[in-house]
Amino acid sequence: MRDLDIEVLDTTLRDGAQGNGISFSVRDKLAVAEALDELGVAWIEAGNPGSNPKDMEFFRRTASLRLTNARLCAFGPTRKKGVKTTEDKQLRSLLLAQTEAVVIFGKSWDLHVDKVLKAEKKENIAMIAETVAFLKSEGRLVMYDAEHFFDGWAANPAYALSTVNAARDAGADVIVLCDTNGGAFPNAVIAGVKAVREMLPNVKLGIHAHNDSGLALANTIGAVQSGATHVQGTLVGFGERCGNTALAALLPGMELKMGLRCLPDGNLVRISELTRRVAEIANVTINDDMPYIGSYAFSHKAGMHADGILKIKQSFEHVNPAAVGNERHFLVSEVGGRAAIADRIKKIDKTIGKDHPVTAQLSEKIKNLEAEGWSFEGADASFELLVRRELASLKRPASLGGKAAIPRVAYKPLFRIVAYRVMSEHPTGKTLACSHAWVKVLVKGQHEIAAAEGDGPVNALDSALRRALIRFYPGLAKVRLEDYKVRVIDGKDATAAQVRVLIETTDGHRSWSTVGVSADIIDASRSALVDSIEYMLINEK
Amino acid sequence: MRDLDIEVLDTTLRDGAQGNGISFSVRDKLAVAEALDELGVAWIEAGNPGSNPKDMEFFRRTASLRLTNARLCAFGPTRKKGVKTTEDKQLRSLLLAQTEAVVIFGKSWDLHVDKVLKAEKKENIAMIAETVAFLKSEGRLVMYDAEHFFDGWAANPAYALSTVNAARDAGADVIVLCDTNGGAFPNAVIAGVKAVREMLPNVKLGIHAHNDSGLALANTIGAVQSGATHVQGTLVGFGERCGNTALAALLPGMELKMGLRCLPDGNLVRISELTRRVAEIANVTINDDMPYIGSYAFSHKAGMHADGILKIKQSFEHVNPAAVGNERHFLVSEVGGRAAIADRIKKIDKTIGKDHPVTAQLSEKIKNLEAEGWSFEGADASFELLVRRELASLKRPASLGGKAAIPRVAYKPLFRIVAYRVMSEHPTGKTLACSHAWVKVLVKGQHEIAAAEGDGPVNALDSALRRALIRFYPGLAKVRLEDYKVRVIDGKDATAAQVRVLIETTDGHRSWSTVGVSADIIDASRSALVDSIEYMLINEK
Repeated sequence: MRDLDIEVLDTTLRDGAQGNGISFSVRDKLAVAEALDELGVAWIEAGNPGSNPKDMEFFRRTASLRLTNARLCAFGPTRKKGVKTTEDKQLRSLLLAQTEAVVIFGKSWDLHVDKVLKAEKKENIAMIAETVAFLKSEGRLVMYDAEHFFDGWAANPAYALSTVNAARDAGADVIVLCDTNGGAFPNAVIAGVKAVREMLPNVKLGIHAHNDSGLALANTIGAVQSGATHVQGTLVGFGERCGNTALAALLPGMELKMGLRCLPDGNLVRISELTRRVAEIANVTINDDMPYIGSYAFSHKAGMHADGILKIKQSFEHVNPAAVGNERHFLVSEVGGRAAIADRIKKIDKTIGKDHPVTAQLSEKIKNLEAEGWSFEGADASFELLVRRELASLKRPASLGGKAAIPRVAYKPLFRIVAYRVMSEHPTGKTLACSHAWVKVLVKGQHEIAAAEGDGPVNALDSALRRALIRFYPGLAKVRLEDYKVRVIDGKDATAAQVRVLIETTDGHRSWSTVGVSADIIDASRSALVDSIEYMLINEK
Repeated sequence: MRDLDIEVLDTTLRDGAQGNGISFSVRDKLAVAEALDELGVAWIEAGNPGSNPKDMEFFRRTASLRLTNARLCAFGPTRKKGVKTTEDKQLRSLLLAQTEAVVIFGKSWDLHVDKVLKAEKKENIAMIAETVAFLKSEGRLVMYDAEHFFDGWAANPAYALSTVNAARDAGADVIVLCDTNGGAFPNAVIAGVKAVREMLPNVKLGIHAHNDSGLALANTIGAVQSGATHVQGTLVGFGERCGNTALAALLPGMELKMGLRCLPDGNLVRISELTRRVAEIANVTINDDMPYIGSYAFSHKAGMHADGILKIKQSFEHVNPAAVGNERHFLVSEVGGRAAIADRIKKIDKTIGKDHPVTAQLSEKIKNLEAEGWSFEGADASFELLVRRELASLKRPASLGGKAAIPRVAYKPLFRIVAYRVMSEHPTGKTLACSHAWVKVLVKGQHEIAAAEGDGPVNALDSALRRALIRFYPGLAKVRLEDYKVRVIDGKDATAAQVRVLIETTDGHRSWSTVGVSADIIDASRSALVDSIEYMLINEK
């Protein structure tokens, strides 16, 4: 195995835990550490044991972790102003974490020394030097985080450099330059890294960037291009305010485009899966438009783009989606072309190509439906049902020979709603919820009627429909709605405008999405609910 | 007024519309154009009239737009291979859009010319040159988008430069270098821009970046630092795949940190509000961690950071949040927020300041409502009613002296809904629409009951309510709903999730917005409808 070119430190469990809405249990932290180890980062910055008792509990329980790639480090400040290192409580906690490495942060910006720390400039230097020396004497590998380095370097370059120099002189193994406020621009970061590199040609240099200017990735890449070989970030990207450098967006670029080895061989393909796993544990959503990882990252909507991709992949793709474990999608839409529609039809019936006359007919049909407000972009299951229904109902044109014949696709509706009534009323009586519904269905020649109440009209209708069907299709018991979205398509006519309903359903293992459109929200919901159930029943067989 | 340093082109309505899940009606497009004009961008790239009939419809209706800052441009490809410019359908559509400027895209990358276009390299040059010359002869200002410029320049620099040169020779007014696949790194973009600048020292250079590598912002800033003075992007950032350069994250950095004027004086403070408005129209969510604009952008969680901020603002803030119309929040100790609420209360009653006890009580009330899913950002009229109702109902605390006394605010409900019932049914009979409703109201001691039918349950309820009230308030005759939006706040519980309804109402002269939240869409709509009517009646007097 070749050596890695870049040492990756993930701080999801420390800086990431300072993100808005992020709250890890000790169990969550262990699960995140395992995912990061599977990915193969070199270091996991796992917490600040001096300031957070939960973090100390985590370090106590790390004996149960079986890490193969990553090592743990604990994070904390330099000694307090006017306190001896041997008597500093936070330093004692840091040692109690018993990690191979510690990360110490100290102040590089004279403004912070004067106004926040309220200390003499030379006392700050002593705090840095004595803390690093003390931890080295305790046998730790020491990484020194030069907080606000780039702001400090802009305000008082000589002083900023002297703080870093003190850490190095005291024995720090890695010097990490931090853009703590996230305000630095790439040209300033590159100049700052070069200045430190010039002063300390042999030290291992690191970069820790925040995304307040939207430049964390660029600043990290710029630092690496200027000599940094240690990068810090959080896998998903969350952290204080606008977050940290997202490693999931950084590492693919460095490996695939800069040729720098950051992870053990073969691990990059797992980055989509593991980033999603960490997001899941943190209970945050991966942005659909996240570079490399997001579900939109390789989704093509414009017809011209889809057409180009089908001719030659790199025409509209900067990397191969498979390299990062992601997938290509063609969106079915009015700006998309026939090629994309054919590509999706082919998944249902392999015999139908782009030039098959059915493709043109379906393409026309979709365009008309979209003009009415339908959208199949987020509704794969409804799209599949549309194709099946169309293929089954289209008449074989006389002009077509055997080759172009329309293949038989089995499609028969599995149930039909004969009638329903949904009522919402105010005030509600004591015996009935504000909304109630009854539905009558026809299944295999038999009628069934059922009623239900609910929090709203759609909820009531959904419950009633399931009750009516479950006698015939017991598999429905394990199905539940996961998400329900409403979009008013054109508000011009206000409450009489078209409404588009998107529903996501799950059976516990997989999810599927359906769409319904109508001027009536109940009717649009009914259409999406029917598709959702029908899709499940067809695929259950 | 000083001249602007940077010419900003927003392509929300063209490249943005190619984003996943984005679908604008013509009315949406007009509203987006108005918001962009209020912000003060120089150009609005409003659509591709040759490929999208809805875009042509938009251009037909632009006569009704009153733009003060922005001008419109239409977008399209060079002439087709082997077709004369005068006979090219797409070019004809482009001219029919009757915009002052047109944006033409052509190929810079030989791979695309060979494999996608399947044309001779010199035919591609002719397509570019003839198209630009033709549009110039038709009196248009021509911007030339050099598609895939940076990939092309890496693969075959001489050819890439020759395509750009052809556009310039033919009279293009602006040369825009595009990173169409979003794969370029800042150092490559900077080198590419410098190469074109050297070849064409006097042309106006532009940059169009995509975010597939997470570097759109950095690439745009790098291009500007290398001589580009025209920048393209979409305000919110959405667009093909991972999106375009987010102007909402770019413009604050360029104005506040690089000292470059991009917008008319005083407009930058409106960027948070207008970005949210465009996102609302597009029905997308602004990421909480979006630089400058996101709700987390100035939220401080770590106690040390909050402490630093209270000592000196720039210790943990790279810019002043007020400069971009955003706000500081402290997540642990809620010292933030109240000032902003006081600011809005003052607009209703000038005597109430930030330290008035009512402000704290209202701040608490709003916090609780927001936790339930209410949002007053887009619902000024509901916010005003909330303040009036609270001020009228709050008891005068005994502890307060005359100075802090709660001022009297006239508020009395002008009507009350005693009961309603809304029914939706399928199949519909021949004598009644699919939805019908009756409403009983109490006005000035008198009861009135009315019924109506409609396209959907909310439409039926709205009609019935107006009929019941119009006898007492004839002014309602001139009021109509302009827009109706539904958002499911937390889809986790599917159809039983909370629903937020936003309604925009007009009396022909002015518009106002109201909000309602409930698990029941009918109830949420009722609440927003009642606010809408009440607000109109209060302000009519």
